Amino acid sequence: MTQRIDKALIAEQNDKLMPALLEDYDALARKLARQDIDIERITKQAELFQIAIPSWGTGTGGTRFARFPGEGEPRNIFEKLEDSAVINDLSQATERVSPHFPWDKVDDFKELKQYSDSLNLKWDSINSNTFQDQQDQQHSYKYGSLSNTSEAAREQAIEHNVECIKWGKILGSKTLTVWVGDGSNHPGQQHFQHAFERYLNSMKKIYAELPAGWELHIEHKMFEPAFYSTVIQDWGSNILAAMELGPQAKSLVDLGHHAPNVNIEMIVSRLIQFKKLGGFHFNDSKYGDDDLDSGSLHPYQQFLIFNELVDAQYRKQEGFNPNYMLDQSHNVTDPIESLINSAASVQRSYVAALLVNRPALTDYQLNNDALMASNTLKEAFHTDVTPILAMARARKGGAIDPIRTYRQSAYRATVAKQRPNSGGNGSGIV
Amino acid sequence: MTQRIDKALIAEQNDKLMPALLEDYDALARKLARQDIDIERITKQAELFQIAIPSWGTGTGGTRFARFPGEGEPRNIFEKLEDSAVINDLSQATERVSPHFPWDKVDDFKELKQYSDSLNLKWDSINSNTFQDQQDQQHSYKYGSLSNTSEAAREQAIEHNVECIKWGKILGSKTLTVWVGDGSNHPGQQHFQHAFERYLNSMKKIYAELPAGWELHIEHKMFEPAFYSTVIQDWGSNILAAMELGPQAKSLVDLGHHAPNVNIEMIVSRLIQFKKLGGFHFNDSKYGDDDLDSGSLHPYQQFLIFNELVDAQYRKQEGFNPNYMLDQSHNVTDPIESLINSAASVQRSYVAALLVNRPALTDYQLNNDALMASNTLKEAFHTDVTPILAMARARKGGAIDPIRTYRQSAYRATVAKQRPNSGGNGSGIV
Amino acid sequence: MTQRIDKALIAEQNDKLMPALLEDYDALARKLARQDIDIERITKQAELFQIAIPSWGTGTGGTRFARFPGEGEPRNIFEKLEDSAVINDLSQATERVSPHFPWDKVDDFKELKQYSDSLNLKWDSINSNTFQDQQDQQHSYKYGSLSNTSEAAREQAIEHNVECIKWGKILGSKTLTVWVGDGSNHPGQQHFQHAFERYLNSMKKIYAELPAGWELHIEHKMFEPAFYSTVIQDWGSNILAAMELGPQAKSLVDLGHHAPNVNIEMIVSRLIQFKKLGGFHFNDSKYGDDDLDSGSLHPYQQFLIFNELVDAQYRKQEGFNPNYMLDQSHNVTDPIESLINSAASVQRSYVAALLVNRPALTDYQLNNDALMASNTLKEAFHTDVTPILAMARARKGGAIDPIRTYRQSAYRATVAKQRPNSGGNGSGIV
Amino acid sequence: MTQRIDKALIAEQNDKLMPALLEDYDALARKLARQDIDIERITKQAELFQIAIPSWGTGTGGTRFARFPGEGEPRNIFEKLEDSAVINDLSQATERVSPHFPWDKVDDFKELKQYSDSLNLKWDSINSNTFQDQQDQQHSYKYGSLSNTSEAAREQAIEHNVECIKWGKILGSKTLTVWVGDGSNHPGQQHFQHAFERYLNSMKKIYAELPAGWELHIEHKMFEPAFYSTVIQDWGSNILAAMELGPQAKSLVDLGHHAPNVNIEMIVSRLIQFKKLGGFHFNDSKYGDDDLDSGSLHPYQQFLIFNELVDAQYRKQEGFNPNYMLDQSHNVTDPIESLINSAASVQRSYVAALLVNRPALTDYQLNNDALMASNTLKEAFHTDVTPILAMARARKGGAIDPIRTYRQSAYRATVAKQRPNSGGNGSGIV
Repeated sequence: MTQRIDKALIAEQNDKLMPALLEDYDALARKLARQDIDIERITKQAELFQIAIPSWGTGTGGTRFARFPGEGEPRNIFEKLEDSAVINDLSQATERVSPHFPWDKVDDFKELKQYSDSLNLKWDSINSNTFQDQQDQQHSYKYGSLSNTSEAAREQAIEHNVECIKWGKILGSKTLTVWVGDGSNHPGQQHFQHAFERYLNSMKKIYAELPAGWELHIEHKMFEPAFYSTVIQDWGSNILAAMELGPQAKSLVDLGHHAPNVNIEMIVSRLIQFKKLGGFHFNDSKYGDDDLDSGSLHPYQQFLIFNELVDAQYRKQEGFNPNYMLDQSHNVTDPIESLINSAASVQRSYVAALLVNRPALTDYQLNNDALMASNTLKEAFHTDVTPILAMARARKGGAIDPIRTYRQSAYRATVAKQRPNSGGNGSGIV
Repeated sequence: MTQRIDKALIAEQNDKLMPALLEDYDALARKLARQDIDIERITKQAELFQIAIPSWGTGTGGTRFARFPGEGEPRNIFEKLEDSAVINDLSQATERVSPHFPWDKVDDFKELKQYSDSLNLKWDSINSNTFQDQQDQQHSYKYGSLSNTSEAAREQAIEHNVECIKWGKILGSKTLTVWVGDGSNHPGQQHFQHAFERYLNSMKKIYAELPAGWELHIEHKMFEPAFYSTVIQDWGSNILAAMELGPQAKSLVDLGHHAPNVNIEMIVSRLIQFKKLGGFHFNDSKYGDDDLDSGSLHPYQQFLIFNELVDAQYRKQEGFNPNYMLDQSHNVTDPIESLINSAASVQRSYVAALLVNRPALTDYQLNNDALMASNTLKEAFHTDVTPILAMARARKGGAIDPIRTYRQSAYRATVAKQRPNSGGNGSGIV
Repeated sequence: MTQRIDKALIAEQNDKLMPALLEDYDALARKLARQDIDIERITKQAELFQIAIPSWGTGTGGTRFARFPGEGEPRNIFEKLEDSAVINDLSQATERVSPHFPWDKVDDFKELKQYSDSLNLKWDSINSNTFQDQQDQQHSYKYGSLSNTSEAAREQAIEHNVECIKWGKILGSKTLTVWVGDGSNHPGQQHFQHAFERYLNSMKKIYAELPAGWELHIEHKMFEPAFYSTVIQDWGSNILAAMELGPQAKSLVDLGHHAPNVNIEMIVSRLIQFKKLGGFHFNDSKYGDDDLDSGSLHPYQQFLIFNELVDAQYRKQEGFNPNYMLDQSHNVTDPIESLINSAASVQRSYVAALLVNRPALTDYQLNNDALMASNTLKEAFHTDVTPILAMARARKGGAIDPIRTYRQSAYRATVAKQRPNSGGNGSGIV
Repeated sequence: MTQRIDKALIAEQNDKLMPALLEDYDALARKLARQDIDIERITKQAELFQIAIPSWGTGTGGTRFARFPGEGEPRNIFEKLEDSAVINDLSQATERVSPHFPWDKVDDFKELKQYSDSLNLKWDSINSNTFQDQQDQQHSYKYGSLSNTSEAAREQAIEHNVECIKWGKILGSKTLTVWVGDGSNHPGQQHFQHAFERYLNSMKKIYAELPAGWELHIEHKMFEPAFYSTVIQDWGSNILAAMELGPQAKSLVDLGHHAPNVNIEMIVSRLIQFKKLGGFHFNDSKYGDDDLDSGSLHPYQQFLIFNELVDAQYRKQEGFNPNYMLDQSHNVTDPIESLINSAASVQRSYVAALLVNRPALTDYQLNNDALMASNTLKEAFHTDVTPILAMARARKGGAIDPIRTYRQSAYRATVAKQRPNSGGNGSGIV
């Protein structure tokens, strides 16, 4: 357990940074007070914000061309949990971890649960994996899993998902996220309708195994690994599938899985309206499913998505309770640093969206005052909420400047020694 | 009536071209016979193919930057019908015309019906227009029509659609197509959910006025004239709206209204599967809603769409009966030539799709033989069906080479004299 | 002259807002001081920032579908100058106006120059127009202007550009910006190489007429009005043309004229490196050349572009002296408000880019510390520089809150009475 | 050598198919004769057409998510050559193989040359690889190769390229193709200009080692593996680099390496015009660098590219002599089948482009007859040139139906037994 970040180190670092933080925080408090916003109410909400860490995100990612491993990468789910605990130590916003099976499969799930409890970590959505062949696997997924033309392959994929639910129950999870790589690379390869029907039939069998209180999240993706068509290519197919399955089925939005130029915040609104928004995989992208760090390229888009989410909360929209999770590929950074940074980036969007003057916005909308409506959002976005984020972390025992404190801790160098055979397979691929 | 194409001219031209056509047709017949395809069965289906002409397409189109009118443009719906009759004289595949109101509004719709009867033309889907302000209009659509925040503007837009139905009944149409320009140019300008709710409520009122046997077709568009969001931005919002409205509401696919890279043939398949494919606006595009001539850039995409349509026909898919219509902007060509050419281009895709060996394709699909599945489609696509198209036209009294015959007819020069004040507003804008 | 914004009104409004501004400004000064940044140095640079107003931007824009005019639109270049003066009264960052010929053509250019002098306005780049046909024009540009297959049409277009230079000399401009709509809508319509050769030959003739000290700016555009190909489609063709012409020819970057996903800040860097960055047309877009308000959708992209510009300034890059100009289409807002707002938005990016810690950034870059390099940019971007912008305006006599003061002034209502026949053609089309 | 396709099998299969082929060929000959085209002249040119096979393409490709190996994959360059020989046996259009180092590195390059000679195969362009780290490599390419901030890493990458030239000389190659994965994933990570300067300096050192008669081909790629920026992101940076280096440096066009919607045939024209078209990597794609089978999705685009190439040939454009090569990732098909099929697909575009009536096209272009210009291209494209392709193969000893004959040969099953440990690394990644 010595690898975790020493509380004394955090405290020492925070002590140095606190005077400046207090000065900025007070200035912001006065500014917000002039807008009739109580900074303490916002900071409280910032403290409550949580976003899950994907277990696989703690390893270095790569592309089909290469993977350049970093040092001290976690070699199994226990070490991934260690790294996740460090992230939460510093960020205080990531107490949940989302596992990926069979990558994170263990012999004794109760032991795994005890270990996560000991780290004060909880389990988020379970991710099944039927887009790769495992060594001992009977039927290949080369031509699909839940939509495969072979019934045996479909049954195998269904069975894997049912197992994931079983393991998730032990871990205390409440959600199964299903993303499949099924699709085609050639026109004609697949009969679109028959493939979708097979997919729906398979999903119905999985849905039937869902415990009460659980949700089944469907993830769509426009392309990759299939490059001509995918079975759940967009939110349209996604919501139709969720509607076919029933109320426990919802749609999950991964920010990188859309066609170019698509208005994602509008899709979020549609899913909210039809009570089908299950959750998010946050990341950023420029060209395709780039899986870059959340908010690193399009911070205003991230804000606009949270504008929809906070608005739904504000309107007390029925059935609104989405999951937040990061899903990124860290190819050139220390994964721990990127995850800390990205959690804060998403949290920043959430906090800024809390500052939007909603009654004024409604007024501008009803009067078609496009300019002032836009400026109302921008005023919130321009507000530098860094002091709120830092204060929320500090009050919960986290770091005011988590990257600096992490580097001071020398955690990476320490685990590099303890994980000599890291850099292998199974980690970091998103 | 002297403007129409002289049957003697057509016959004379066809006589010259017939020997070569017969030689090619016979060679193709022998080739198809080796594939167990009876060319006569295909030619018969080609003869039955129909695609509607948009009345506005007979004028020269333009962009926000400029419109460069051609000579002899039609100045009203009567002259548009004349031009449409010429197109059908030559192409024999375009006996229906789709009007646009109020552009084509007349004082006496019965007179208009008599005129179209006299030209052997029928009326296709009625297009309402609430994306422009008319001179005598009480409430502006600057900030939307069916989703406007003003109830008065919404009611005005509803009323216009109800009138369109009324006029359509006189003309013998059976479909109302609703496309609105509603949307926003600024984040925050519109509350996405409230705007969509207002849109749905307005559409419900229109739907309630739909006569038995009619369909209401909803057209989505990703952008333009609104550039940040549109109320019906994609097939997802489209099908949800159609489902909310009821069985007489269906989705219309305009090939140019999608995000870049989107797999349109797959959307067609999804709409077929959920019994919501209402019809098409055919055109081609490279960058946005370019409204280029159908099949001029992406002939294989057009073929793949017809592969889905012919497959649905082949499988006797329930509730499958879509409308076909051209919807193009002819900025640099004679609109009559482009419409003749494009009707033949769409017909070419249909005929080629009829040649697909579907039992073999099914086999390849079930065996995941991606390469041979792809080649099965390509074999049909590579087949030069020009002789079938030409023969189908010739047998029905149309022209073997319709562009050549049209130019020989000097129709354009003739109407240029008869329509001295053409080149004005109201035509060609798509 | 009574239409202009009363200085007393500005002063009165500023007086009310000054106490809060001072509080925020002081807090920001202290925060920046901790980063060793002297706020006064930054504010001084903010005061010097200038961006030109496009004369046509003062009218309401539209699309090929419709234009919804606002009230009191300027009816000629004199009224456009009045509106521009108002924008500068309030923003104090827009003392230059860019005219568009023949839209802004007058009989007596000296009189026009006297009028602009009287308003303390200067003239920015001259824009020629060979993408529309004018009423008295001998040769049509339907099939192109500088690249037309007809020599007479090309000569006419060249002659127009030479006239533009002549008028620009009277007005005191130093730049001619050439954007043409030349291109094609059909594969095969144009011989790509021959069209480009004709374009280059025409441009060489214009270049030969360029006075000493002038620059010729070439603007590329991927599509619209031509939808299959354009003669100067991207920065590649643009820079090659500029290199063929000579040192006075440079490339102009319009933010909306690129393919989806393109990294525009990188293009800016390349043009700087090869000494060919002439200037900018600022606007924002989501789907195509949407011409939305600058920074309204992608504020971080705008910042990243200014990061390149400030970096070039910092490195004292040879030959670096680009023009800044807005080029937007205001379809749903008061154009004056949008132009004020957008000038401030661009200025915001500039000021934020000044805050980047460049020595630290260089260090991170050399050490491949991608995360901290990214965070260094983000730290500057997150800083709310609103107080600097407001203070810079106030110190120069502009408005702390220019939109509010503008609305208080009732300028629009005043001119609405004075411009009874506004809402006509020639304005607002971008 | 028993693995190669038995000539007797080919002859036997061809004998069965020849009567039908002759019938179709004769019919096509008559049709072309009516257009004054001598089919024999076209068939002769088809026989001369050659396109290189990428050595790595003979293995199954994959994505970052998974690779699903096929059976009997080649385990080294000798087995890749065997497979290439089979492809050429059947297609008679692929006598050159393009190697990739260090993947295809051997101890004795003379032995390799002797082996390729024995198979009647020649060597195409040499591909260097500095986008992966090799096991024994001193400096990592994680942060770039030719543009790395570390001089030692740059020198290592330069040295590798110089070695590639050395090996290529032994093999009889005349071209080095350089594609690097250099770029960045975060704004700020890289200084764009400095990175490009480092790249250019490295390339100058490689260029200096180029033997007389060799060419250096630069390949650009918009993204992947770098997801925010790449050093040679588009044809603009590519041609500028080639111009900086000198006349032996040219640009290579990979069809999948462009932004969405980009007009690639126009880029081809520009490179031809500026004497910088080095060659092609043919493949097809829908979403990104999908590396699908050439012409499988966009056959008309492929034709339009060949329309430019044949036009340059027709105009005897100076310095025009591009390399053709396939570069695809075969994830769901037998790579040999895909390569045979794709070579024929590219050849089909070439042959169809030969049929374009160029004098007529020129006439239509000069008269701005967009419709007939478009139809002139379409007439050639619609012509089913399958009989020409088959006859060209048959006359050279290849297979009329190469896929069918390949399957009859049971080659794959045979090598599957001889290559027990296939399915490993190093193959198929594109």
